[in-house]
Amino acid sequence: MKPNWIAPSILSANFAKLGEEVDNVLAAGADIVHFDVMDNHFVPNLTIGPLVCEALRKHGVTAPIDVHLMVEPVDRIIPDFAKAGASIITFHPEASIHIDRTLQLIHDNGCKAGLVFNPGTPLHYLDYVMDKLDIILLMSVNPGFGGQSFIPSALDKLRQVRKIIDDSGLDIRLEIDGGVKADNIRAIKAAGADTFVAGSAIFNQPDYKKVIDDMRVELALAE
Amino acid sequence: MKPNWIAPSILSANFAKLGEEVDNVLAAGADIVHFDVMDNHFVPNLTIGPLVCEALRKHGVTAPIDVHLMVEPVDRIIPDFAKAGASIITFHPEASIHIDRTLQLIHDNGCKAGLVFNPGTPLHYLDYVMDKLDIILLMSVNPGFGGQSFIPSALDKLRQVRKIIDDSGLDIRLEIDGGVKADNIRAIKAAGADTFVAGSAIFNQPDYKKVIDDMRVELALAE
Amino acid sequence: MKPNWIAPSILSANFAKLGEEVDNVLAAGADIVHFDVMDNHFVPNLTIGPLVCEALRKHGVTAPIDVHLMVEPVDRIIPDFAKAGASIITFHPEASIHIDRTLQLIHDNGCKAGLVFNPGTPLHYLDYVMDKLDIILLMSVNPGFGGQSFIPSALDKLRQVRKIIDDSGLDIRLEIDGGVKADNIRAIKAAGADTFVAGSAIFNQPDYKKVIDDMRVELALAE
Amino acid sequence: MKPNWIAPSILSANFAKLGEEVDNVLAAGADIVHFDVMDNHFVPNLTIGPLVCEALRKHGVTAPIDVHLMVEPVDRIIPDFAKAGASIITFHPEASIHIDRTLQLIHDNGCKAGLVFNPGTPLHYLDYVMDKLDIILLMSVNPGFGGQSFIPSALDKLRQVRKIIDDSGLDIRLEIDGGVKADNIRAIKAAGADTFVAGSAIFNQPDYKKVIDDMRVELALAE
Amino acid sequence: MKPNWIAPSILSANFAKLGEEVDNVLAAGADIVHFDVMDNHFVPNLTIGPLVCEALRKHGVTAPIDVHLMVEPVDRIIPDFAKAGASIITFHPEASIHIDRTLQLIHDNGCKAGLVFNPGTPLHYLDYVMDKLDIILLMSVNPGFGGQSFIPSALDKLRQVRKIIDDSGLDIRLEIDGGVKADNIRAIKAAGADTFVAGSAIFNQPDYKKVIDDMRVELALAE
Amino acid sequence: MKPNWIAPSILSANFAKLGEEVDNVLAAGADIVHFDVMDNHFVPNLTIGPLVCEALRKHGVTAPIDVHLMVEPVDRIIPDFAKAGASIITFHPEASIHIDRTLQLIHDNGCKAGLVFNPGTPLHYLDYVMDKLDIILLMSVNPGFGGQSFIPSALDKLRQVRKIIDDSGLDIRLEIDGGVKADNIRAIKAAGADTFVAGSAIFNQPDYKKVIDDMRVELALAE
Repeated sequence: MKPNWIAPSILSANFAKLGEEVDNVLAAGADIVHFDVMDNHFVPNLTIGPLVCEALRKHGVTAPIDVHLMVEPVDRIIPDFAKAGASIITFHPEASIHIDRTLQLIHDNGCKAGLVFNPGTPLHYLDYVMDKLDIILLMSVNPGFGGQSFIPSALDKLRQVRKIIDDSGLDIRLEIDGGVKADNIRAIKAAGADTFVAGSAIFNQPDYKKVIDDMRVELALAE
Repeated sequence: MKPNWIAPSILSANFAKLGEEVDNVLAAGADIVHFDVMDNHFVPNLTIGPLVCEALRKHGVTAPIDVHLMVEPVDRIIPDFAKAGASIITFHPEASIHIDRTLQLIHDNGCKAGLVFNPGTPLHYLDYVMDKLDIILLMSVNPGFGGQSFIPSALDKLRQVRKIIDDSGLDIRLEIDGGVKADNIRAIKAAGADTFVAGSAIFNQPDYKKVIDDMRVELALAE
Repeated sequence: MKPNWIAPSILSANFAKLGEEVDNVLAAGADIVHFDVMDNHFVPNLTIGPLVCEALRKHGVTAPIDVHLMVEPVDRIIPDFAKAGASIITFHPEASIHIDRTLQLIHDNGCKAGLVFNPGTPLHYLDYVMDKLDIILLMSVNPGFGGQSFIPSALDKLRQVRKIIDDSGLDIRLEIDGGVKADNIRAIKAAGADTFVAGSAIFNQPDYKKVIDDMRVELALAE
Repeated sequence: MKPNWIAPSILSANFAKLGEEVDNVLAAGADIVHFDVMDNHFVPNLTIGPLVCEALRKHGVTAPIDVHLMVEPVDRIIPDFAKAGASIITFHPEASIHIDRTLQLIHDNGCKAGLVFNPGTPLHYLDYVMDKLDIILLMSVNPGFGGQSFIPSALDKLRQVRKIIDDSGLDIRLEIDGGVKADNIRAIKAAGADTFVAGSAIFNQPDYKKVIDDMRVELALAE
Repeated sequence: MKPNWIAPSILSANFAKLGEEVDNVLAAGADIVHFDVMDNHFVPNLTIGPLVCEALRKHGVTAPIDVHLMVEPVDRIIPDFAKAGASIITFHPEASIHIDRTLQLIHDNGCKAGLVFNPGTPLHYLDYVMDKLDIILLMSVNPGFGGQSFIPSALDKLRQVRKIIDDSGLDIRLEIDGGVKADNIRAIKAAGADTFVAGSAIFNQPDYKKVIDDMRVELALAE
Repeated sequence: MKPNWIAPSILSANFAKLGEEVDNVLAAGADIVHFDVMDNHFVPNLTIGPLVCEALRKHGVTAPIDVHLMVEPVDRIIPDFAKAGASIITFHPEASIHIDRTLQLIHDNGCKAGLVFNPGTPLHYLDYVMDKLDIILLMSVNPGFGGQSFIPSALDKLRQVRKIIDDSGLDIRLEIDGGVKADNIRAIKAAGADTFVAGSAIFNQPDYKKVIDDMRVELALAE
């Protein structure tokens, strides 16, 4: 089993002082930075692009930056994000007709690659690309829409993907995003996730370290 | 003639400390904040969305925020930006089939409204909407593409729009964006502009106040 | 000058008894039936298609049916409407890259053809197709959006098109649609229109004949 | 097993007197009204929109109205149909990237929700949304194209979905649309359907009650 | 087992003398002509259309022409290719919402029909259309992108499709395209393919007959 | 006045022996090769792409190749055609939001650049890009549709563009495409064209030289 990664989503950080926010959350124990890119087409919202990623690198962030592309099409912007300092780039299978090629393109640009599954998206897109994946991200809310909580059926889906990964013998992380909090992270871990995106659960609290420490305690209990 | 407005484009600011950057450039004498929104569809780049605008307001920025939408379609995101604190919203006529309606929508959301013209876009889109415009923005570079300098023919286009505005007797600002610097701002002012977007010309210099003061000196010489 | 045509828009009729509604409004003195087709793409609404047009013909309607296509693309559906009994088919220039060809296609299917202009759309689309037009329709509200009244600047635009038609010496009708009522139809006529679409102004009144008679009185006063 | 519902598709009714047609078919024993919405994009035809649905409600129709959306995208028009009186709204999984979210949106607007499967569409879209479904609609012809008869392989597909529903223990209707007639409805029922859309089979006959009665006899024989 | 077909892809031929090239490769033993159509939308390249197919027929080519459509949408161009002399038309399931209908359309135009699977595309699209297929084409490179070699996992996918076809008892060819050469064709045959597309492996060699003969020797060894 | 250029459109040539056809037509006196690219999106047809252009260069064609892009979007394919040997690249203003940028892109890739106007397209797109044009192409038929003859009003449009070019003092060719034949080329020349595309008028005749010679005689008479 891979070490747990806590991945704060900077969409919930204060964009007026993003460098400091990221410094603080990493100092508080976060493992990687989760970076949500929306284009107002794949989802009904527009967030942040390569320039913001590049600014974090120039600011001195050295932790992995995990870029979740909620855009379509995806190929054109991948080299931009790689150049801007992305470490991991994930995309939705609905956003690329040429999934195998897009995964290859991410690798060719020196990044780890992954697929993201919406809550309703079936898993068959994994059938012929497992050997090109470094990470699988399951959404436990619908991306781009506000005010949602963790969709319970995501636990079953996590267990299914956990089994697929284990059966494959491949080295693939299993990430979860949407409504993750200290009080459900243990169950999520138990279902098979090893990488945990949390946004408002961390950034809306005064003490990031306390939240992350609480999460670590819960994660330890799951093992 | 309207008072000159210098409008720093925050695309060239340091996104790791954007609140501080905006505070500094306003303290250095900038009049408004220029906010460039790209969606990777209308232009081949993706920048920043409503969340970043909202963060500036929460940070305490009270100056007008001038949102230039390089997105298509435009209607869905207008209420989001209005709610996030935009003061002015401009869009390209190519991005809306219902230009009259979109201008009305911006007004209904409590913002000033304007049209933006690409360097090659003809001016006839002004023919039947002058009475719904608060501002006209002429691009003197092609938006969304890097490494360009001021297109000289934009001066003629400025003069033509200046005349259209003056002939109309309406209260409409004339803004210019692309390659504006201290050494060409006098000629640009003389051609009729009253609102001057400058990005790297300001943010790439160590002393924002010196650049803006230099621009003010040049602008005074044009009058 | 062509005889005035009053063209009730059946969008405001009672769709539960459309045949009877159309019979009644024609008996009340209407000249043609105006038929608004929206596809939820060109405008944010979806209304009625060829089947409804065909049903009116089967019901016995012999008056001209004037189909205003608010759809994109337009070419595929034109033969369907011709076959369903349309007499006139108009479309928006923004909805066809091949305007000349689309006009020809309408004629080849045995219908009269026209262009429709949104309130903000400039008139230059007329420059090279006047000889292929049977009708020009100016929108005095934005199509597909509710709750609007007659845009006053449409009167100037009517006068300009009136002059273009008269200068051409061609046999082209000038139609207006949006907010037309008995109390503004005289001014609209004076500005050059000869074909008047009215929806709620007619169908929301108990006595269709009275409304149409009132309109005729006003039209007579304009001459 | 749920009670059988016979659902006349009003696409085959006489649109000139739609209220009367619906009254008659309900009086003849129909259970619900099937309402086919095509937008000329998802399918190559354009039919009827929310205004027609609303007219039926104003006319006094109280039976459930079962709206089948053959449109893309689907989210924008859902609230319009809910407001217009729809009881059930179904859509195709190919028409929404965010299926889970769209189903939730239909529920949030107070309607029953369902997915529709084209003849060639595989069933895996059901994998993670069964708990959000009130109905599953299988097409036994290709929607939007004329002149087709019942595709025999739809019987196998019905049996498979019947089993999925039964295994889930959930309360989900199974609807079939396309070429359903008195002489095949027994086999269709036997394969697992409980809701039967019929268009021309009913409306092209002089006596709606006789057709529906014949269907009921056949359905009884299947049990 | 069906007889082996070697299908030279004319994309690698000399377009300046295409008739002669096709004559030569057929004389060298090729069984059919493989014709790759790209539209710069489904894939990032644009190749050749119906006119070129028609020219081959007029030139006297009587061998089957196997048209692989890498276009979207597909329906409009199918009759053009049928009229231009295509014998087989295949398309990607991602390019048609109405797969069953598109297969029917190809048959109605007198051609054999098939589905093509990108390397990453799962096989579930086969679930409900097997009885409408004459051929299944698996891509062993990503279509439309240059410089790729045979993706090894395509062998497993071939075996799976081979089994699906055999279990169905239907008369369906299994074609493979991408990186096929004399030195891997035996393994590809062993995995279940019976139709072998080869482009540069044939046309980049001076002696087409030698390449094809070598392939035949390898194919014989696989049986 | 520039020397006349006769530009055979290879769409009408025999694609089975295209190199020979082009050799012959150049030997018969043609000045440049006209190359029509259709993508089944901008126009309802798909023709030939960069590979065919490259084949002509490899075959030894040294005459200018004049590539008319009837595709959208246009930017991605421009470098492909430049690399394949295009000398001139023209595109339709409706196909690029960033016309100024696209013209610059063509120049940056070492080619001459131009705009193409459909029969119904107004000329205002010329207003701000004249200094970036090497050629203006007027269509005298609607591109992508068959069976059309020269649209007479194109003569007026030619005269207008002739005047715009002459008034500008710039070095810009004026090209005409559609229904050009020996019996109307004199009038077309007199209206201002200097570059004449002819397809079937040349390639459907047994003796290319005779047609071109006849055209030259007519052109001489116009001067």
